[in-house]
Amino acid sequence: MTMPIAVSMGDPAGIGPEIVAKAWGVRMEQRLAPFFAVGDVKAIARVWGGPIRRISEPSEACAVFGDALPVVSIQDAGDVTPGLPDVDGARCALHALELAVGLTRSGVASALVTGPVSKAQLYQIGFTDPGQTEFVAERCGVARENAVMMLAGPSLRVVPMTTHLPLSQVASVLNIELIVAKGRATARGLQRNFGIERPRLAFAGFNPHAGEQGALGREEIEIIAPAIALLQEEGIDAIGPFAADTLFHPRARAGYDAAMCCYHDQALIPLKALHFDEGVNITLGLPIVRTSPDHGTAFGIAGKNIAEPGAMIAAIRLAAEAADRRANAATSQE
Amino acid sequence: MTMPIAVSMGDPAGIGPEIVAKAWGVRMEQRLAPFFAVGDVKAIARVWGGPIRRISEPSEACAVFGDALPVVSIQDAGDVTPGLPDVDGARCALHALELAVGLTRSGVASALVTGPVSKAQLYQIGFTDPGQTEFVAERCGVARENAVMMLAGPSLRVVPMTTHLPLSQVASVLNIELIVAKGRATARGLQRNFGIERPRLAFAGFNPHAGEQGALGREEIEIIAPAIALLQEEGIDAIGPFAADTLFHPRARAGYDAAMCCYHDQALIPLKALHFDEGVNITLGLPIVRTSPDHGTAFGIAGKNIAEPGAMIAAIRLAAEAADRRANAATSQE
Repeated sequence: MTMPIAVSMGDPAGIGPEIVAKAWGVRMEQRLAPFFAVGDVKAIARVWGGPIRRISEPSEACAVFGDALPVVSIQDAGDVTPGLPDVDGARCALHALELAVGLTRSGVASALVTGPVSKAQLYQIGFTDPGQTEFVAERCGVARENAVMMLAGPSLRVVPMTTHLPLSQVASVLNIELIVAKGRATARGLQRNFGIERPRLAFAGFNPHAGEQGALGREEIEIIAPAIALLQEEGIDAIGPFAADTLFHPRARAGYDAAMCCYHDQALIPLKALHFDEGVNITLGLPIVRTSPDHGTAFGIAGKNIAEPGAMIAAIRLAAEAADRRANAATSQE
Repeated sequence: MTMPIAVSMGDPAGIGPEIVAKAWGVRMEQRLAPFFAVGDVKAIARVWGGPIRRISEPSEACAVFGDALPVVSIQDAGDVTPGLPDVDGARCALHALELAVGLTRSGVASALVTGPVSKAQLYQIGFTDPGQTEFVAERCGVARENAVMMLAGPSLRVVPMTTHLPLSQVASVLNIELIVAKGRATARGLQRNFGIERPRLAFAGFNPHAGEQGALGREEIEIIAPAIALLQEEGIDAIGPFAADTLFHPRARAGYDAAMCCYHDQALIPLKALHFDEGVNITLGLPIVRTSPDHGTAFGIAGKNIAEPGAMIAAIRLAAEAADRRANAATSQE
């Protein structure tokens, strides 16, 4: 039996409800696998006029999916106004995320797709993780450093080896163990989720020109190069460190399956410059498949019916593909 | 009388000699303004079979340009092997740069185009500037912080407000005065060199998500936002700080004339991802026009006759346009 995909709606005041609903609206043309939303029904109805059906169990989703957007409804988010986030909305987003993770872990959903949340709001209600990725990893019992955030677009996959922390703290967080752990999880994740037999990982330098042999910084010599050597000893096809600014043009991109980046913007600037409306965030190293559209809550355009659902559609599609690949691999190993 | 453009060849073991010669080879199709090379004649002859003519004065260049590549020859670089840089070559590159700057400053050349040098080699012979831009600024009597490196491609212009220094030092170098100085020089430079009457400057944040209102770093609140406010008070159209990762997709790029970036890779990653073979480096804030192809010495492919001259051609073209614009502005003010 095909299990449906669980999609947490994200902040109810953001574009999450709209893009989940719009993705359902194009399920036929886009040949999307069945999914159900997890969140506040009213938040969807406020921004979308299509059919919604409240379900009590994920198992009802596939039967409903043809006719209406199935929603596992959670605690009411209160009087949400699109574009105006508040702490009630943040609580609703967090509960939706928690429930969607639980349903996927328990096996009644085949994969998890998470809608955009507002971290500033979440911090106000006591959320202590840097982002949703770390939250999901913890709920899955996986250590943060073994969970890898990968952003995937049609012509580029990037891994930010550090993510949501002030840029000036990156140098103190980056170390050989972290890089080796990320490299390992990425190589394994590309095999399991993307079916790439021998993944090629290209590591970006931390400093301009990858440090120019030490003249512009020593992180490459002291941290990145030794980590690459260790990965190579494990048989992983790891290369670099390369100057980050020459790692993302078309000829360079053809040389690797994932660019391993030292910090958030080093990875996300090229990904979003090239694939803004179609980037998908996929977490590698988890016992479940988890993807997410690679954009924020976009409060500025929420409730105006102009949000692009492209990245959400891509996230649902990649989640379905990865879940299928894993299920087939598990079957063939039996 | 039209003055020729001076083109310093850069490191003789790099691709500089080849791309200067190739640019001359397509001078007709590309309608390039007359230029002359400054460097070692033998380094060109070693990698290119076309006609070369040694000239003793820039004034001879225009007459020669139709038939041969005019070269103002400087101290022999020794036995240069393409792809194998040495200190003799670095000295040759430095002398060529120095002479080309002098000729442009004195007015016998209309603009300066600089070929790629190897900073690692230059540091070995006592070069103390972070890059050619700072060297040229000093020779022009301009303080470093008032000289602005801008990288320009067909759909994006970026300014790295700090350049060749270890990433971990950027936070301590970035301050309000520096940002205001760079913003001012950029606005003025866009007017003088590009003819943009009211330039729009978009400032990138330093931290991921531009700091998320302080949760992921405070440089935006304490340094960048106050600098933007000061620029606005001066009547400059400055906006931001924006999350750097969402500043470079097509819709975002349409909203500004230059993206003001906090560090080297923040500016050069998107520029090179989008415009690798056509990016031009132009220095704003100088009494002379100075451009440069936005790539390095490419020692790995030197001497193989496979180097792409596109960026060198674009650099020569932009230098000619900017010099014309300045000359016309000067004339119309008389």
